[in-house]
Amino acid sequence: MSGPEGKARGRRGGGRAGNAARRMKSGAIEQMPWRLPVNADRPTEPLREEGVQAIHDGAMRILEGIGIAFYNDEARTLLKQAGCRVEGEQVFMDRAFVMEMVGKAPSRWTMTPRNPERQLVMGDNHILFGNVSSPPNYWDLELGRKVPGTREHCANLLKLTQVFNCIHFTGGYPVEPQDIHASIRHLDVLFDTLTLTDKVVHAYALGAERVEDAMEMVRLAGGLSHEDFEASPRMFTNINSTSPLKHDHPMMDGWMRMARRNQGLVVTPFTLAGAMAPVTMAGAVAQSLAEALSAVALAQYIRPGAACAIGTFTSNVDMKSGAPAFGTPEYMRATQMTGQMARFYGLPMRASGVCAANVPDAQAMWETCNSLWSAVQSCTNMVYHAAGWLEGGLIASPEKFVMDCEELQIIQRYMEPEICATGPAEIALEAIAEVGTDGHFFGIAHTQERYTTAFHQPFVSDWRNYEAFEAAGGAWTAERAHHLFKDIIAQFEAPEMPSDHRAALAEFVAKRKEDGGAPTDF
Amino acid sequence: MSGPEGKARGRRGGGRAGNAARRMKSGAIEQMPWRLPVNADRPTEPLREEGVQAIHDGAMRILEGIGIAFYNDEARTLLKQAGCRVEGEQVFMDRAFVMEMVGKAPSRWTMTPRNPERQLVMGDNHILFGNVSSPPNYWDLELGRKVPGTREHCANLLKLTQVFNCIHFTGGYPVEPQDIHASIRHLDVLFDTLTLTDKVVHAYALGAERVEDAMEMVRLAGGLSHEDFEASPRMFTNINSTSPLKHDHPMMDGWMRMARRNQGLVVTPFTLAGAMAPVTMAGAVAQSLAEALSAVALAQYIRPGAACAIGTFTSNVDMKSGAPAFGTPEYMRATQMTGQMARFYGLPMRASGVCAANVPDAQAMWETCNSLWSAVQSCTNMVYHAAGWLEGGLIASPEKFVMDCEELQIIQRYMEPEICATGPAEIALEAIAEVGTDGHFFGIAHTQERYTTAFHQPFVSDWRNYEAFEAAGGAWTAERAHHLFKDIIAQFEAPEMPSDHRAALAEFVAKRKEDGGAPTDF
Repeated sequence: MSGPEGKARGRRGGGRAGNAARRMKSGAIEQMPWRLPVNADRPTEPLREEGVQAIHDGAMRILEGIGIAFYNDEARTLLKQAGCRVEGEQVFMDRAFVMEMVGKAPSRWTMTPRNPERQLVMGDNHILFGNVSSPPNYWDLELGRKVPGTREHCANLLKLTQVFNCIHFTGGYPVEPQDIHASIRHLDVLFDTLTLTDKVVHAYALGAERVEDAMEMVRLAGGLSHEDFEASPRMFTNINSTSPLKHDHPMMDGWMRMARRNQGLVVTPFTLAGAMAPVTMAGAVAQSLAEALSAVALAQYIRPGAACAIGTFTSNVDMKSGAPAFGTPEYMRATQMTGQMARFYGLPMRASGVCAANVPDAQAMWETCNSLWSAVQSCTNMVYHAAGWLEGGLIASPEKFVMDCEELQIIQRYMEPEICATGPAEIALEAIAEVGTDGHFFGIAHTQERYTTAFHQPFVSDWRNYEAFEAAGGAWTAERAHHLFKDIIAQFEAPEMPSDHRAALAEFVAKRKEDGGAPTDF
Repeated sequence: MSGPEGKARGRRGGGRAGNAARRMKSGAIEQMPWRLPVNADRPTEPLREEGVQAIHDGAMRILEGIGIAFYNDEARTLLKQAGCRVEGEQVFMDRAFVMEMVGKAPSRWTMTPRNPERQLVMGDNHILFGNVSSPPNYWDLELGRKVPGTREHCANLLKLTQVFNCIHFTGGYPVEPQDIHASIRHLDVLFDTLTLTDKVVHAYALGAERVEDAMEMVRLAGGLSHEDFEASPRMFTNINSTSPLKHDHPMMDGWMRMARRNQGLVVTPFTLAGAMAPVTMAGAVAQSLAEALSAVALAQYIRPGAACAIGTFTSNVDMKSGAPAFGTPEYMRATQMTGQMARFYGLPMRASGVCAANVPDAQAMWETCNSLWSAVQSCTNMVYHAAGWLEGGLIASPEKFVMDCEELQIIQRYMEPEICATGPAEIALEAIAEVGTDGHFFGIAHTQERYTTAFHQPFVSDWRNYEAFEAAGGAWTAERAHHLFKDIIAQFEAPEMPSDHRAALAEFVAKRKEDGGAPTDF
């Protein structure tokens, strides 16, 4: 039998992956260029207009009658000042206020990292993809087991994030480096992120110090004045409400700090239907929207026009075990329904590329492909966890990262309008007449002029026949991805950064470590 | 390291697959019931109206000016009699004739197998799925290598075809049994197909004898009179034009025989862009349509109202090796474009679930999922090769069959409108109020009343956490699918068939074998 095992060690993997790796120059894998994909397809919309109204009304009635708990005094004070009814920790918002605030939020905004060529557009028909965020554990084929994440694992995943052009931003830690003390972890990982990548970065809303440190480090990495940093979003945070119907203290604190400094704000309730939300998907979506819109309203009250987006993380649980499931039919429909609602509210939307699978195998890919296609079908603008996610987000895997990037490149090529061009040169009647009923199209001019760029070219897929595949060692996809991962790391070159920016970053990190970093009592 | 290898032999696979298999009763896996899925989603339409017109005009100009070679005297004689210009083997059809003939074709028709409860509807928004058809070779995890197909392999795949409710029809041989002489192969495999399954079957258009034998065996298996057999379609054939622009003799012969007996007719040009068709997808689609519509026109001339459908098998080749690629961005868009054209012509459409991968691994699933989702997005009515296909159709694999059925069940559950219901019971405000900001939804009545049927339940996916997955042996998906396959075969019970029908079938097969079967000089 043939497959991944017993081959990652020692023998080099054959196949396209190996070749692609060998073709790499200065860390550059043969791949599509960096671009901001535009999703021009009509979204898939399972809800009729009355369905949209029913979910909207449900969300509004939750905000008006059931209320959201804000475990943050400052947030409650502000919302009371805004005219909301506050009882203990519960805040009740009427729909007029919510819709007035939501109306102030832009439907389109940008984020500009230290490399302005990596500027991102959130909204319209743009769809952006980011790496896996926040797994505590790491798995790779050579280890063959689940281990706590380390700074080296994290740095390697950041290198993949930088190298693959189909990845547009870096989310939270691609794996949580548990070999760094929690008080200074954010400093070391952000230093690595800002020096190993030049893409838009994320800040965890985990207490004042972490958010402030992150904003300062992004400012220093870009050599920006405070004014320039705040002129338009340079980075973003993603907060999760504590479903059902709660916003906790540190997340709200970071949310408000980022709003005041005009940075990107994404709120993603984690509403597992049947656990933290109703078992019915429409109810789970309505609850998710209520939680998200309450945070958007707060941000818009603090800073009208603040750059907000609402995320969906609505899925179902395995009712036999209570375990979360991803890429399911219910997950896909919830994502599409949320897409309809995001357009109703005029807000950019975030979804995810996710799976429940524990290893980078077939199940991992059908679950991930289903979730990614639902992101496309819903006209999602930001796809979190799009590369490297396993075990419901508890494991980051470099093999899964490489596989996912193949699918992401397929999706981004799929969005290039030239595939469906129908001009005379594409209908190609002359070519068809030239070949007639005999011969083939390989050799003719119409083919020769186009073949090098006509089609998607994979980097980890093996398109050879079985005999050639076997002769090269019969490496299954996970093994080919493993070797490609190793080759990318071996040939990685960090993006350029002015030495004074780097020095300023290093100095800041050293000083903050002397100060003791951030509290870990959250 | 963990994975499929070294475990399929000996040890039982752990995980949901094993459990699902143990839960099986009389061959019945725990799965969704048999149903005819309805695809209510708006199709994805990459072509604007002018694009549809451009491809239509291209197809018509191919038929009018370039012509199609019909290597069948009777076909040419009929088409000449119909008013087409015939020069040697070339037939030229003007668009008025083509559109008049296409206008006679029904947009919806049925196929009724020996078990009338398995009646299929071709057209409208129905989407039907069939097993892999015609690979010469077989691969399973226990063998771990590619071997020529046998009658036993074929029978086992037919048993899977019968057991899985997400499979609606059986296409050609699920694997070509090379241990049966070609002259009588169709007799033995059709006997197995008609006795091991009660679903709609297919006849190869490979010479008069095979087609006539197949129709007679379907008639005998159903205990039908000739009149009943011809009253409405009982079975179908799928022919491939010999691209570019050719229809060969045996396929046309079978096509005309099936048309005269009022059976289902599907024509699927195999137009690999850059090889047998233009490198540009619009040109490949236009050529594919010209080839398909010329066969539809002939069928409608022979029998107005004949049950026709057009298939798409337009994909791209790897321009580095010439190997066909599947589930690519170009493949998906070609399928969607063909869907728009099928609706333009008012004809049911066939597509496929396909991949280039050689083993049932991650690549196999992202390629297959991409092709399956493009079938959904294009509002395809019949999905060929939807379970069990590997190596571009050169290998049939039972593990891939089981994995594909999981994705097919996901797609069919995805199409159930109740997922997106938005009535008060689904918005569930009372449940949300009951749980409030504390506690969870597991225990409440709203959940308890619904949880057993609320969500998709997989049979081969493992949704447990990594530790439970490891403790059970860490079986990767291919291994779990292998054990499920073995359990299904072990517990298979053939569908009931009246003994006199079975005897008539056996007698017919014996007699035809005495006669020497069918010629093998094709």
